[in-house]
Amino acid sequence: MKVIIAGAGAMGSRFGLMLHQAKNEVILVDGWPEHIDNIKKDGLKANFNGEEVVAQIPIYHQNEVASVDFSADLVILFTKAMQLDAMMKEIKNMVGTNTKVLCLLNGIGHEDVIKKYVPLSNIILGNTMWTAGLEGPGKAKLFGNGSIDLQNLGEDGRDATEEVIACLNKANLNAKYSGNILSSIYKKACVNGTMNGLCTILDSNMAGFGETDVADAIVESIVSEFAAIAKMEKADLNIEEVLTQIKSCYNRETIGLHHPSMYQDLIINNRLTEIDYINGAIVRKGKQYNIETPYCSFLTQLVHAKEQILGAK
Amino acid sequence: MKVIIAGAGAMGSRFGLMLHQAKNEVILVDGWPEHIDNIKKDGLKANFNGEEVVAQIPIYHQNEVASVDFSADLVILFTKAMQLDAMMKEIKNMVGTNTKVLCLLNGIGHEDVIKKYVPLSNIILGNTMWTAGLEGPGKAKLFGNGSIDLQNLGEDGRDATEEVIACLNKANLNAKYSGNILSSIYKKACVNGTMNGLCTILDSNMAGFGETDVADAIVESIVSEFAAIAKMEKADLNIEEVLTQIKSCYNRETIGLHHPSMYQDLIINNRLTEIDYINGAIVRKGKQYNIETPYCSFLTQLVHAKEQILGAK
Repeated sequence: MKVIIAGAGAMGSRFGLMLHQAKNEVILVDGWPEHIDNIKKDGLKANFNGEEVVAQIPIYHQNEVASVDFSADLVILFTKAMQLDAMMKEIKNMVGTNTKVLCLLNGIGHEDVIKKYVPLSNIILGNTMWTAGLEGPGKAKLFGNGSIDLQNLGEDGRDATEEVIACLNKANLNAKYSGNILSSIYKKACVNGTMNGLCTILDSNMAGFGETDVADAIVESIVSEFAAIAKMEKADLNIEEVLTQIKSCYNRETIGLHHPSMYQDLIINNRLTEIDYINGAIVRKGKQYNIETPYCSFLTQLVHAKEQILGAK
Repeated sequence: MKVIIAGAGAMGSRFGLMLHQAKNEVILVDGWPEHIDNIKKDGLKANFNGEEVVAQIPIYHQNEVASVDFSADLVILFTKAMQLDAMMKEIKNMVGTNTKVLCLLNGIGHEDVIKKYVPLSNIILGNTMWTAGLEGPGKAKLFGNGSIDLQNLGEDGRDATEEVIACLNKANLNAKYSGNILSSIYKKACVNGTMNGLCTILDSNMAGFGETDVADAIVESIVSEFAAIAKMEKADLNIEEVLTQIKSCYNRETIGLHHPSMYQDLIINNRLTEIDYINGAIVRKGKQYNIETPYCSFLTQLVHAKEQILGAK
């Protein structure tokens, strides 16, 4: 397949590399000049389960991509949420009427952006358990195993989705069809919608927050707002299961001493967060469905206040 | 009058000193050993509008006060909110059936504690514009002018309140009767219920918060919860007036660059906050009146989480 990786950070590099190794024709599109320059010069490097690999994969800056002649069969979206709309606009010359677009961004509601550029029947939503890191610009660190669940957003997209699944599986990406991808996406969003904003606002790791005597009450209030919206979108959430998964983040023996990604974005790197696409998306959908979402609303506002107080960019 | 100052910090020292100078028989009760020892040894010292004064006023630690023989005409309460119940218990031998109790604590709902020890007709609520500081244990810093509004809580306490007003005015404390003390108390609580918790959670001064583009929305949500509760308590709040007063705190030319008292308590001095008696009181009253108060609830929880994460005491 001819594949565009739109957003070639850590996760994009993993998918790009593995699809390239499986003989797909891959191009990377990104917006980080240093990363792009290094890959153009030396190829995409990776420590891939302990082995040093280098792959010559074409990479373009998203603002130079309009003139590239490439008719994609598949676009895999891995941008930051707030960069999605610009990316879709910039790659639109390479997206034809048969191009499938697989969305793997964190957060919810991205289909509302993608729909502006792509017919519903070509949109596939995914939820992945793969992980990835970057050692620096141009070099990925790819350890461990993962999987990915996919489902077409439109009713008539099942066949196309199965083709994409076959392609991903040839690259050992462990893809499978899911009958309820929105439930998985909402479940993941609940974890992000609690740990990310709360640890960022409280300047705490996950264990530090989880061990306070108010953690359960706060988390339950937030999750109940996510669940009310999920229900309207026919994505059933098992609240007990979600709460159990959130509480597993507090474990000091495993990941409890880590700070979630939003904390790293804002507090460590002084970057704007994705809060509008997690809790903020719940607020927007709440207005649409006439459902009160005060905890998500206040948390979104607090994170925006913090971004502005810190002068994040 | 025989007056107990229950809680002899900065403000208690001001009231104690001025009432003592006006020939009342004053005793101070407090819980800070160093402060008590210095006053026992050298008297209460103050820089009083630029003049160094020393007053020999008896002071007791609250845990030694049970055996003191003193029949108070008036108790003025200036404790921290969370210390009120213990203080009332400790001074109860000095509080007779005719002792008036004037509550000048920050926050709302303290009458629910005082009522356990004192008949309604003896309880007076006050709201003061006086300020005061401490230079160190045993030494107050008292500058500027102020005033104090008073109102009896019980219907039949007007005469007693007027006697207290006369006593305070002989000491130049500018007291006057108020027909709607609860409105003033709620108005002040709105300022504290926004600036205190928000600046503490966001680690910001008041201007820093006020200049974010979410400040208005957050403040309006919180104030509307206070207003809904105030209405149930027959304390009319002029919301526009409250919002104007809150916004005046953002002014960098005046007080905007200051951190509110809760920030100083928790972030600077690692002490537990009074949040349960400001936003937390709104949450308790909301349950009582069946009114939703999610912003006050979440803010109270976040401040408690922060207290625990920082190990405040």
